[in-house]
Amino acid sequence: MALAYDPLFISSSAMDVASPPPMILTQDELKRIAAYKAVEFVESGMVLGLGTGSTAKHAVDRIGELLRQGKLENIVGIPTSKKTQEQALSLGIPLSDLDAHPVIDLSIDGADEVDPYLNLVKGRGGSLLREKMIEGASKKFVVIVDESKMVKHIGGSKLALPVEIVPFCWKFTAEKLRNLLEGYGCEANLRLGEKEKPFVTDNGNYIVDMYLEEDMGDLGVVSDSILRLPGVVEHGMFLDMASTVIIAGEHGVKIKNKHTST
Amino acid sequence: MALAYDPLFISSSAMDVASPPPMILTQDELKRIAAYKAVEFVESGMVLGLGTGSTAKHAVDRIGELLRQGKLENIVGIPTSKKTQEQALSLGIPLSDLDAHPVIDLSIDGADEVDPYLNLVKGRGGSLLREKMIEGASKKFVVIVDESKMVKHIGGSKLALPVEIVPFCWKFTAEKLRNLLEGYGCEANLRLGEKEKPFVTDNGNYIVDMYLEEDMGDLGVVSDSILRLPGVVEHGMFLDMASTVIIAGEHGVKIKNKHTST
Repeated sequence: MALAYDPLFISSSAMDVASPPPMILTQDELKRIAAYKAVEFVESGMVLGLGTGSTAKHAVDRIGELLRQGKLENIVGIPTSKKTQEQALSLGIPLSDLDAHPVIDLSIDGADEVDPYLNLVKGRGGSLLREKMIEGASKKFVVIVDESKMVKHIGGSKLALPVEIVPFCWKFTAEKLRNLLEGYGCEANLRLGEKEKPFVTDNGNYIVDMYLEEDMGDLGVVSDSILRLPGVVEHGMFLDMASTVIIAGEHGVKIKNKHTST
Repeated sequence: MALAYDPLFISSSAMDVASPPPMILTQDELKRIAAYKAVEFVESGMVLGLGTGSTAKHAVDRIGELLRQGKLENIVGIPTSKKTQEQALSLGIPLSDLDAHPVIDLSIDGADEVDPYLNLVKGRGGSLLREKMIEGASKKFVVIVDESKMVKHIGGSKLALPVEIVPFCWKFTAEKLRNLLEGYGCEANLRLGEKEKPFVTDNGNYIVDMYLEEDMGDLGVVSDSILRLPGVVEHGMFLDMASTVIIAGEHGVKIKNKHTST
């Protein structure tokens, strides 16, 4: 089913309803609608990958709420960042890690871009490596976004495609990345954090944000080319990983499943 | 030319000499012979990649010696590890890095294995990532080994193929590596350092040492498969990177160049 009605929210009516409700939702409300919808997939006893970022935060909050209410039990959460770990701990969600739970039932996380084939860009929040490890180990990976994240092709938002690199000679690696993708109008900038110092990931690495003007074509080929650069640890393209994408928009919630078109 | 006579060493006579000298050389002497031979490629004014390990150490020593003697000048060294950096500094070799010198004239380094196509295994010393960055940026990469390092296929020595991984959930990543190569009789063990604690690379990562029973076939395919695992930073296969391999053996020094057979 491509379109869904979410009983939790009056405003999240299905897109095929003739007259959408007049209420104007903020982007954060849309994120929350998608997040709550995703949590409907959660069942007691599951091992859950807990995403990172402003959208995933709502899902983690909701899981905590359902645990407190006794509507969910025996959940084990696997956080994708130190930040999410702190959030989950504060909510009383029992936590573990990939070493103890190498197979995860369900992961829920946001994304920065979603293309028509459900390929993603992730990592603007800086947690792409742990997210990729955990979500890649999940039987089901539900992605939650507001409709502004849908793009015709990866890079299409003109926002960053993040690449995690080792700090050692980062300028050299950034230049290699720029050269690799220069045919697509690529810029590559070191991400800065507080006090204009390099942003440092949970793994002690740096992030180079790449900005692309054009469709890169075969993403599998581009992915391998990036990963072959020795200073690169991981990139933010999540190819063929999402099983379901939940998209909250002004006119309702849309659900896209892998290998189905809506 | 496949065979070379090294005037520096009486013992390094060419292999085609009918009666090899009777002197028995230690493995370390063979390493030194190969190293000194490689330094003959060094010219004043070059930017040099300085390798790491027991064989490369001899080359760095020799470069320092030639600088002191005034036989070389205007050398800039790019060290592949903190250890080599310390050695080079103590010898008075001027140093820089890849950011300042993204193109290197010549790199000299040892290897743990060399196959008939001059593919290498490196990283038993733990510096594979920096070595791969620096040696991959070199116009010429001369590899120096004693003859015990020559193998029929990568993994053939039954010694480790090292893979650098992020510490986060390393058991999970090690298991993924083991599964990936299990068709080749693979074991995958975390490398330990002092006090049985995990060995930590210059980049703050761990090393998984993989032991292979069988020829992996198409190494390019294996390489991409390893690099696609999200917890992997880099592996120790250096494919199609060596331009020259200098092999010191009991019976002399042999030089193999890329795309030539001896």
